[in-house]
Amino acid sequence: MAGLGPKIDHLMEALRCLPGVGPKSAQRMTFHLLERNRDGAEQLALALTDALGHIHHCKQCRILSETELCSRCADPQRQRQQLCIVEMPSDVLAIEQATHYNGHFFVLSGHLSPLDGIGPDALGMPQLIALFDQNIIEEVILATNPTVEGEATAHYIGQLAQARNIPVTRLAHGIPLGGELEYLDSGTLSRAFAGRASL
Amino acid sequence: MAGLGPKIDHLMEALRCLPGVGPKSAQRMTFHLLERNRDGAEQLALALTDALGHIHHCKQCRILSETELCSRCADPQRQRQQLCIVEMPSDVLAIEQATHYNGHFFVLSGHLSPLDGIGPDALGMPQLIALFDQNIIEEVILATNPTVEGEATAHYIGQLAQARNIPVTRLAHGIPLGGELEYLDSGTLSRAFAGRASL
Repeated sequence: MAGLGPKIDHLMEALRCLPGVGPKSAQRMTFHLLERNRDGAEQLALALTDALGHIHHCKQCRILSETELCSRCADPQRQRQQLCIVEMPSDVLAIEQATHYNGHFFVLSGHLSPLDGIGPDALGMPQLIALFDQNIIEEVILATNPTVEGEATAHYIGQLAQARNIPVTRLAHGIPLGGELEYLDSGTLSRAFAGRASL
Repeated sequence: MAGLGPKIDHLMEALRCLPGVGPKSAQRMTFHLLERNRDGAEQLALALTDALGHIHHCKQCRILSETELCSRCADPQRQRQQLCIVEMPSDVLAIEQATHYNGHFFVLSGHLSPLDGIGPDALGMPQLIALFDQNIIEEVILATNPTVEGEATAHYIGQLAQARNIPVTRLAHGIPLGGELEYLDSGTLSRAFAGRASL
């Protein structure tokens, strides 16, 4: 996509750092911003710079935060006995929206993936072990994604916790609400069948 | 979507100025940039600021350009006798990729839309009339979109040109290549039938 000068090309290229944005979307966004919404583009540039300068990870739970300790970790009302471990900050928001969970979180920022060079250290495991060793936690809730990598990560953390005699739970697998048995993948159906509960 | 602080919320809100980005995509983009691609976010902020500061409209054809006169208008090899009128800068790129057109362009940056307050002045009509009055143009090619507004805009410009005895052409309507008659909308089929050509 050439022909409008290097600065426009550079903006199109830069927009492709956004997830789900290919060359065609980047072109559409570039024209939209420059033709229709220069104020929005300026706001976006400022918000990006501002966020990059001020948003870091909470030193305790590793979620994105403007302060050294995030609002959740600093909140004395939250139960320190429960620790819910998730892969991404968005999982924290999803769990808070769906449940009344009032314990602490720990954000891995990913899952174990040795082929990509993501090992325990990159996921903050030393920090997590230090938390375990404080002897405050009475339940570790593993809420990683039900993918191969998420399961492996949950298994790894589960062993770390059990070695310290901390009870570990995992989110239930089964049929999603509104789902139909007929269209369910066999893995989920098998887990739902094996995990059947008495009424 | 609350809970991670005002700067993150502000970035999510700012990303929604991009076309096709809703609250969920904005959240995903925010986490991706802050967790995975801070360099990309920095580049994007710089590219936006750079583009806003240096990219304006070509004073002759109104396309986005870094220089006062864009590379097309400054090119003496291009035929000044032909003027192709399009709605958006992306249409210029599309026509250049698909054809061997070597004349000049004029970018309206929209179409006539009285209800939205977009009249002839907002589309650069005075500038276009000044071009017509130079008595250089021998063909005006109307390449606005085949929508109601695009057709109305083409009709308006066509009348301006014809009043100055400049021949006007319009891109052909008909069956798109690879299309099937059965699934074609009746408007297009009717135009294709009426515009049938002898082999």
